[in-house]
Amino acid sequence: MDLALDQARAAAARGEVPVGAVVLDAAGKVLAAAGNRTEADHDASAHAELLALRQAARLRASPRLTDCTLVVTLEPCPMCAAAISAFRIKTLVFGAYDPKGGGVEHGARIFAASSCHHAPEVIGGVRETECGDILRDFFRARR
Amino acid sequence: MDLALDQARAAAARGEVPVGAVVLDAAGKVLAAAGNRTEADHDASAHAELLALRQAARLRASPRLTDCTLVVTLEPCPMCAAAISAFRIKTLVFGAYDPKGGGVEHGARIFAASSCHHAPEVIGGVRETECGDILRDFFRARR
Repeated sequence: MDLALDQARAAAARGEVPVGAVVLDAAGKVLAAAGNRTEADHDASAHAELLALRQAARLRASPRLTDCTLVVTLEPCPMCAAAISAFRIKTLVFGAYDPKGGGVEHGARIFAASSCHHAPEVIGGVRETECGDILRDFFRARR
Repeated sequence: MDLALDQARAAAARGEVPVGAVVLDAAGKVLAAAGNRTEADHDASAHAELLALRQAARLRASPRLTDCTLVVTLEPCPMCAAAISAFRIKTLVFGAYDPKGGGVEHGARIFAASSCHHAPEVIGGVRETECGDILRDFFRARR
């Protein structure tokens, strides 16, 4: 989560919503790390999670990351949650809960849908306050 | 839809699940067209819709496509439906319904979630049989 927090802080420094994500293999080796790039890349899908998943899959030369863990500072939105399922991620670890935009424990609850073909193990609320503070500080400074 | 069907057929010829998508602006001009590339790109998120949305946004140098229409041969999955919302697409036109994998009229029903911030106008079932036949032929040939 330290590396994901670093990515979130780097995103904030670029003026992006500060969320960071890291993909690790079964041995704990970092395969990919990314922060939000929606504004820089003119890409509404350039969320930290999706960028890290794509990086890791490219490195592995496989669209399936069945032994991997995704660590992200914020509860993934429905798009990223569905992507986590599509990439067959084994374990999802996230920091702050997102009652408004989240799609794991809130909203569309992607992994709970009967049509979800692959649901990862989910560990939420890891270093929740620290992860949330980066977001709160960012939005407070913008108001 | 003709162009989306062409993209679906081209995807089938590459051995990809045959789905095609096109993004048009308010004047009906084609901004982007793509077919599935999940295997070729080693990217489980490389669905036709997401690729076309990213192409169009790159062309526009904006992550928001508020005046645009996305035409796709198959009901979008939850990931793509949430991306359509994130890119602020105005109108979604799709061909075949997808009771197993769809996330618009089925499963997570992304646009119906109370936390969905932007829902496009949805027109489903356009040239439904033709769009579905390409998929049925593809999977029949693989069995």
